[in-house]
Amino acid sequence: MGLIIKKNVLIVGLGLLGGSYAMGLKRKGFCVNAITLDRNDIDYAIENDIIDYGTTEIDEKLIGDAELVIFAVYPNVFIKWIKENGHLFKKGTIITDVTGVKGKIVDEIQNMLPDGVEFIAAHPMAGREVGGVQNSDDSIFKGANYIVVPTEKNSQGAIEICSDLGNILGFADISVLTPQKHDEMIAFLSQLTHCIAVSLMCSNDDPDLVRYTGDSFRDLTRIAKINDEMWSELFLENRSVLLKEMETYRESFNKLYDYINNGDVDGMREMMRLSTSRRKNFDRK
Amino acid sequence: MGLIIKKNVLIVGLGLLGGSYAMGLKRKGFCVNAITLDRNDIDYAIENDIIDYGTTEIDEKLIGDAELVIFAVYPNVFIKWIKENGHLFKKGTIITDVTGVKGKIVDEIQNMLPDGVEFIAAHPMAGREVGGVQNSDDSIFKGANYIVVPTEKNSQGAIEICSDLGNILGFADISVLTPQKHDEMIAFLSQLTHCIAVSLMCSNDDPDLVRYTGDSFRDLTRIAKINDEMWSELFLENRSVLLKEMETYRESFNKLYDYINNGDVDGMREMMRLSTSRRKNFDRK
Repeated sequence: MGLIIKKNVLIVGLGLLGGSYAMGLKRKGFCVNAITLDRNDIDYAIENDIIDYGTTEIDEKLIGDAELVIFAVYPNVFIKWIKENGHLFKKGTIITDVTGVKGKIVDEIQNMLPDGVEFIAAHPMAGREVGGVQNSDDSIFKGANYIVVPTEKNSQGAIEICSDLGNILGFADISVLTPQKHDEMIAFLSQLTHCIAVSLMCSNDDPDLVRYTGDSFRDLTRIAKINDEMWSELFLENRSVLLKEMETYRESFNKLYDYINNGDVDGMREMMRLSTSRRKNFDRK
Repeated sequence: MGLIIKKNVLIVGLGLLGGSYAMGLKRKGFCVNAITLDRNDIDYAIENDIIDYGTTEIDEKLIGDAELVIFAVYPNVFIKWIKENGHLFKKGTIITDVTGVKGKIVDEIQNMLPDGVEFIAAHPMAGREVGGVQNSDDSIFKGANYIVVPTEKNSQGAIEICSDLGNILGFADISVLTPQKHDEMIAFLSQLTHCIAVSLMCSNDDPDLVRYTGDSFRDLTRIAKINDEMWSELFLENRSVLLKEMETYRESFNKLYDYINNGDVDGMREMMRLSTSRRKNFDRK
């Protein structure tokens, strides 16, 4: 358990995920400090025992003392922050993140950090439809998947520390993927699904719909409530992979359209049986 | 409360919905009998106090005594059953159903029934991913929507009785729609969503996906486990309306695709803000 020697944690970005990480780690006895933009978020987090200490400043001592740093900010903010302040970390510090797309970001961050400071990327597959530290809840990690996303530059030790972090936070399954494979998975499982939900919600403006809806529609559009600033950035970071997944899905949809249009019952039923058998594997254990 | 005078209920088709109706009505003191294909389903339902009596036969006395009859079978089975046995109902009997598409079916049934026997269509917007009387659960109606679907031929009394039935079963919102309007709503809210879930599930066969999935994908594909016999029939019954909804949705999806492809952040964010604001109305109260 490599994390046992990393007790001094710094969270950068105290939103829903940053706050939930802080909550989970503090509960396990870590010393958790935070740097974030809004003083109110720090006040809230201290009052509610989510962090030990926080500041809105670039506090050189706080940054230099941190043994494990977790970035829970938008990709562009992350890159800018490291560019400006990366030199403040001490040797041996491990940095990780929660960013939903890895591609170029991981290389870019790794190349900017001083020698002896290691960035090991991670993606916690958990979230809520509401944001903000006020909605922090470390129970969202229970039963969820956690992906460690190392490059060739990462040490085995850092990979282990990052996996330990997932374990400590209570994730159910910890896996390791390359940035390329991660981004393909995420394009399909997360980005495409958000594209579908948004498109569906935008395709009908009948205000009466809500009176007649069932849970199918509610479940399908739960993620249509979306942080437009963050997701448009994530979509563009992963553009080519996402577009490919959108095309494959569209072909599948068009195939079903044609079957219905042609009254091809066998074709329809074959797709339905395939989807039924595949979906069964995704039920929570 | 018109239903107070209709105490003798007959359920035709003892599956998930038929069983859940039976369970809810028996709990409220109705006498509930059933006709269904499989003797095992009847035995199960009697043992578990879901019905009072049941048979696999066309029992003329049972049918003739029924005051309220609920059909919970596929559209084609419903039509065939009424064609063969509709003459057995007594004057004053009210017939209703749970069929997910109304269009031609309502007219066809109403035209076949003898004078004095009234069919008032209804659509309970509730269900589960598992079928069969063994999964009966009248709590699925709680908080759900219920739609009464009268034609010009229906009496005010029958509409009231059918609405009462929804109330007695515990539905949260009872509304009244014409068959045409109903089928448009359902094409969008229910059929299109099933098309999307099936298409998405069929568009990627990577067996590793399940290790990396989050709840977004699980929620979006919950209904990809689908009864292929029933849904292919429902899709074709409502073909032209469904195809139109599929086209409108596809346009919306293509628009988002183009925004991403062109790096049009404003376009993306505008769609996301629209979907976010619209989706908020659909949260359960």
